[in-house]
Amino acid sequence: MIPKLDVDAMERARARQDRLTKPAGSLGRLEELSIALAGITGKLDPPLQDRVVFTLAADHGVAREGVSAYPPEVTPQMVLNFLHGGAAINVLARRAGVRVVVADFGVDADLPSHPELRALKIRRGTASITSGPAMTEAEAQQAIDAGRGLVAEEARRGLDVVLTGDMGIGNTTAAAAVICALTDLDPREVVGRGTGVDDDGLERKRNAVRRALEVNAAAIAHGPLPALAAVGGLEIAGLTGVILEAASRRLPVLIDGFISGAAALAAARIEPGATSYMIASHRSQELGHSAVLKLLGLTPLLDLHLRLGEGTGAVLALPLLDAAVAILNQMATFDEAGVSEREGSNVEAAQAES
Amino acid sequence: MIPKLDVDAMERARARQDRLTKPAGSLGRLEELSIALAGITGKLDPPLQDRVVFTLAADHGVAREGVSAYPPEVTPQMVLNFLHGGAAINVLARRAGVRVVVADFGVDADLPSHPELRALKIRRGTASITSGPAMTEAEAQQAIDAGRGLVAEEARRGLDVVLTGDMGIGNTTAAAAVICALTDLDPREVVGRGTGVDDDGLERKRNAVRRALEVNAAAIAHGPLPALAAVGGLEIAGLTGVILEAASRRLPVLIDGFISGAAALAAARIEPGATSYMIASHRSQELGHSAVLKLLGLTPLLDLHLRLGEGTGAVLALPLLDAAVAILNQMATFDEAGVSEREGSNVEAAQAES
Repeated sequence: MIPKLDVDAMERARARQDRLTKPAGSLGRLEELSIALAGITGKLDPPLQDRVVFTLAADHGVAREGVSAYPPEVTPQMVLNFLHGGAAINVLARRAGVRVVVADFGVDADLPSHPELRALKIRRGTASITSGPAMTEAEAQQAIDAGRGLVAEEARRGLDVVLTGDMGIGNTTAAAAVICALTDLDPREVVGRGTGVDDDGLERKRNAVRRALEVNAAAIAHGPLPALAAVGGLEIAGLTGVILEAASRRLPVLIDGFISGAAALAAARIEPGATSYMIASHRSQELGHSAVLKLLGLTPLLDLHLRLGEGTGAVLALPLLDAAVAILNQMATFDEAGVSEREGSNVEAAQAES
Repeated sequence: MIPKLDVDAMERARARQDRLTKPAGSLGRLEELSIALAGITGKLDPPLQDRVVFTLAADHGVAREGVSAYPPEVTPQMVLNFLHGGAAINVLARRAGVRVVVADFGVDADLPSHPELRALKIRRGTASITSGPAMTEAEAQQAIDAGRGLVAEEARRGLDVVLTGDMGIGNTTAAAAVICALTDLDPREVVGRGTGVDDDGLERKRNAVRRALEVNAAAIAHGPLPALAAVGGLEIAGLTGVILEAASRRLPVLIDGFISGAAALAAARIEPGATSYMIASHRSQELGHSAVLKLLGLTPLLDLHLRLGEGTGAVLALPLLDAAVAILNQMATFDEAGVSEREGSNVEAAQAES
């Protein structure tokens, strides 16, 4: 069950914004964000100290079908890079004071045990979505539950903000298939270049998604969970769980890019109330991302032409949440600062008129 | 004299970006930013530690003509708010580790002396631009020189990044007049609602700018400095100096919103090479700002519907500069991390082909 937003806290946040020493509305999205965070957490000054990016990794059977510019062995290689602290997500997370939780949800390799790696492998990669279901419904549910479990585990250590991230060669193909399966969007509107395939690769990706939708049509018609199992990925299902658990705990979730967007859409189809807890961090360069954001009713905070995933966009947007909360709580009000309000709205003007 | 960008450093930054463990270009604007900063500073790892927002305040004669939603006494009141640390710029600057330099360039009030206030008053507000020149050319030059002097002074304390900011009731009217005077844009395309005037106020603003352009046509035709003196403001001229001095010292300048945009345009007209040192922090909600950015050839980093000024947008964009430099310098390369490159570009693939 997803709780409702705290409308009363939102009202109080809005009222306070209008008393701060600035023209009402002049801090735009920052003001909206402070109000949204009040609704999510029930607090005007929510703590944002314990911030965790959940970077979930898995492989995709479809990656062997020429849909990516990189070979599948890059998935485990990048997991090791995360563990050694050399990837973009590590660099950005260090700067922003974010804990990086790296989890193997289905990498097609034996990863060494490592204190920083959560070994939650459900299976070694998915089956190719072009010839049948990626995984069973039970496996998809297991991935969702494991994602929820990760959030629960981090909550015991302290958790104020959840950020989503992903790694998996081939996962823009699976994410596009999930998005098409859950909406009436056509692969032409959703399938993009991912890590950078050429025109031929793009055509192969589109065809792979089309075949996946045909082959798995019966499962897709059965609802969001069967659809996610049929054409999704283990990290996508895991992120769906991360998002659902965050929402059920009234934690703000910063949604990263295209893969996280597919997971967010699946979460919203499973529990429509979850969207209230989502904050879109950025608009990805990946073709179908804008359509997903629109369907979710989310406006991204950043538009920096990112298309990396890992949670990088989510971490980059985090300082804006910090700023929004600081503005609401630390600025002086008109009364406190002795600043005149709009002509006609301040006391002197009111007296002058009387 | 504005030095040229360091093209060699830019080349080295670009080459390094392509060796980092991510698809080339996948960090979008962040990659471009790291390359731009290398060109500006000549360093791939420029220090960004000493960061100063120059928040220049002045009054405007035209403010008495119903062009603002707030009374002119708000200018000195807000200066005091800055000095007491209660304004938006203080809150955001504290979070981002930015020094706030508050300077009186022409507030129409006697401000108390305060250790944090730079008393550089050139005159008590401008004359109304609707009936003649705002100030003399000598006063405009004096304001530019004072702006340059502020940067020089801060440079002695340590200065790595310059941020621009402003305060002055009526200054969106003056900024719009400067922009129209320096371009062939029409007031209809440039004059916006500022702090929030209603439709009648907007019409009065447009008419005020039109009259200012007519009354001061001769001065405007004489070049950027006479134009700035005729229809500008003391803080706008001061910011022009801040930007010119930053560029001449090869410091990156984060340009705030509409008022700073007018100052940036004036700086670019006086010294075209200065634009290379400008980074547009955000796209303001103020009507004419996008046109100014386009003329300067700048794409803003943020688009958060801000319209406050003070330097708030510039400070909000600063973490992106930090992130860009961290990415370029702290990420592992493909070789270091043992990650395979694009199919066909890695060593194994090259050997397989041979």
